[in-house]
Amino acid sequence: MSLVIVGSLAFDTIETPEERKEKIVGGSCTYCSLAASFFTIPKIVGVVGEDFPQETIDLFKKRRIDIQGLEFAEGKTFHWEGLYGRDPNQRTTVKLELNVFADFKPQLLASYRGAEFVFLANIHPELQEDIRVQFTNPEWMAMDTITHWIENNRDTLLHVLKRCHLFFCNDEEIKLLTDEINLLKAGKKILEMGPAYVVIKKGEHGALMLGEDFVFGVLAHPCEEVVDPTGAGDSFAGGFLGYLDSVKKVDKLELRKAAVFGSVMASFAIEDFGIERFKSLTLPEVKNRFSEFKKLTTF
Amino acid sequence: MSLVIVGSLAFDTIETPEERKEKIVGGSCTYCSLAASFFTIPKIVGVVGEDFPQETIDLFKKRRIDIQGLEFAEGKTFHWEGLYGRDPNQRTTVKLELNVFADFKPQLLASYRGAEFVFLANIHPELQEDIRVQFTNPEWMAMDTITHWIENNRDTLLHVLKRCHLFFCNDEEIKLLTDEINLLKAGKKILEMGPAYVVIKKGEHGALMLGEDFVFGVLAHPCEEVVDPTGAGDSFAGGFLGYLDSVKKVDKLELRKAAVFGSVMASFAIEDFGIERFKSLTLPEVKNRFSEFKKLTTF
Repeated sequence: MSLVIVGSLAFDTIETPEERKEKIVGGSCTYCSLAASFFTIPKIVGVVGEDFPQETIDLFKKRRIDIQGLEFAEGKTFHWEGLYGRDPNQRTTVKLELNVFADFKPQLLASYRGAEFVFLANIHPELQEDIRVQFTNPEWMAMDTITHWIENNRDTLLHVLKRCHLFFCNDEEIKLLTDEINLLKAGKKILEMGPAYVVIKKGEHGALMLGEDFVFGVLAHPCEEVVDPTGAGDSFAGGFLGYLDSVKKVDKLELRKAAVFGSVMASFAIEDFGIERFKSLTLPEVKNRFSEFKKLTTF
Repeated sequence: MSLVIVGSLAFDTIETPEERKEKIVGGSCTYCSLAASFFTIPKIVGVVGEDFPQETIDLFKKRRIDIQGLEFAEGKTFHWEGLYGRDPNQRTTVKLELNVFADFKPQLLASYRGAEFVFLANIHPELQEDIRVQFTNPEWMAMDTITHWIENNRDTLLHVLKRCHLFFCNDEEIKLLTDEINLLKAGKKILEMGPAYVVIKKGEHGALMLGEDFVFGVLAHPCEEVVDPTGAGDSFAGGFLGYLDSVKKVDKLELRKAAVFGSVMASFAIEDFGIERFKSLTLPEVKNRFSEFKKLTTF
């Protein structure tokens, strides 16, 4: 099996009510691949500038992430600045500097094209489409997006969505995309748009996964201190797809477990700023939290 | 075992974006006792006016609810009018006519005083206290409240809360009461205020139950059509306490099941206006939905 993750590698400047962090490493591809690396050997597709820290490249290598598809370009790494309110679900983008990402037009390595699992993390839908068509015949083409593309590039987004098997979104995004406030109805609308499954991430309220004749609810790990919510969604996708890539046969039970591992990885991501928590995280800790989720919901 | 439910019996005028219903039967005691009646024989304490429909009294009898503690007073029944927005969690109180409830000072029947389970539904905290002290030694004294009392009668409320074993609240109420946005922290603050357990109801996001070294999360039943959210919280409490009253020994597993039965009963309440759904509901339907909850969350 193999999993290719396409997305951003970035510097994030993050301000929460408690603290401000300048230019720490982030990006959808970064979070997702680190989370997935606890289950499989993810291949990544993305671009970094000359200022991207060697320390993070070393971390990727240490976590056995395949970085052959990572492009090193002249110039500066993508930079995002965001501000969180007292409610960690409320986020404002303060600044966005595309930098090397502006000219990013990846040609996939031959060894990447046959991937069975693909995750098109949040990037411009046109870029998602350019990359999507380079894969030969993935069993699971998954994608994510943000409200910005739903508002400004809806047609292209719907084109990609139609050709995906799995859509990751949050409650705000799905409501905007479907014009439906009820998540069950909204999810069903997404299924009519193409994907076989949709995972609706609801922050502290967990996630809801829908398919044909399939509904599964997973809680978020109860957490007293959300230090930095950045990357929770991408870590969820990483845990989800990384786990699926590691099993022999994807069935309904494995999909349920994947959603729980998604929630597990998201719960670690928010415990510290940026990717900090993933640096010390161990597989026993991951498995232990999976067991905690069982305890949390079993009756 | 025995369960006494103290609260309002009312006429509700309800307006949702789809429909308006004038003066249909409602009230915390009504919803709670109907929900509990699927598990035990609840005793109710409340007051109705001369205009309260015999049909509902007959329904109570049919569902084997003990109405010896129900007072029939001269005058009109309590009347509440509420308006729901497109988001069913957003509710505005338009009108409140206390009527016979204004002079309600119940003296408990001797046969009620020894109850092992008591639910003080949302009423004035002073009234809750007047009634609370009439019970001899309940094992489980449970209470609910609303933001209005938190804002206007905090001291009395805290006095009652300190003497309760179980507090039912929603996320808005607990945030207001504890001045804490994180539900886990907020819940722990409640535990310091007296109760051994707190159940935080989160509407479509389910509920979180906390105790010492105890965390349990229950989902809400995924529902495409919330016809009328009124009474969901009281139905939750009814299912929860009714179930507990029916088991031989309350332990952690039974508490978990109680929370699921609470969520089950709430999920039925919102399927139709007022108490309509409880008129046709059967025990096999209740048990079947309990199984659906298992399916929804098992991994």
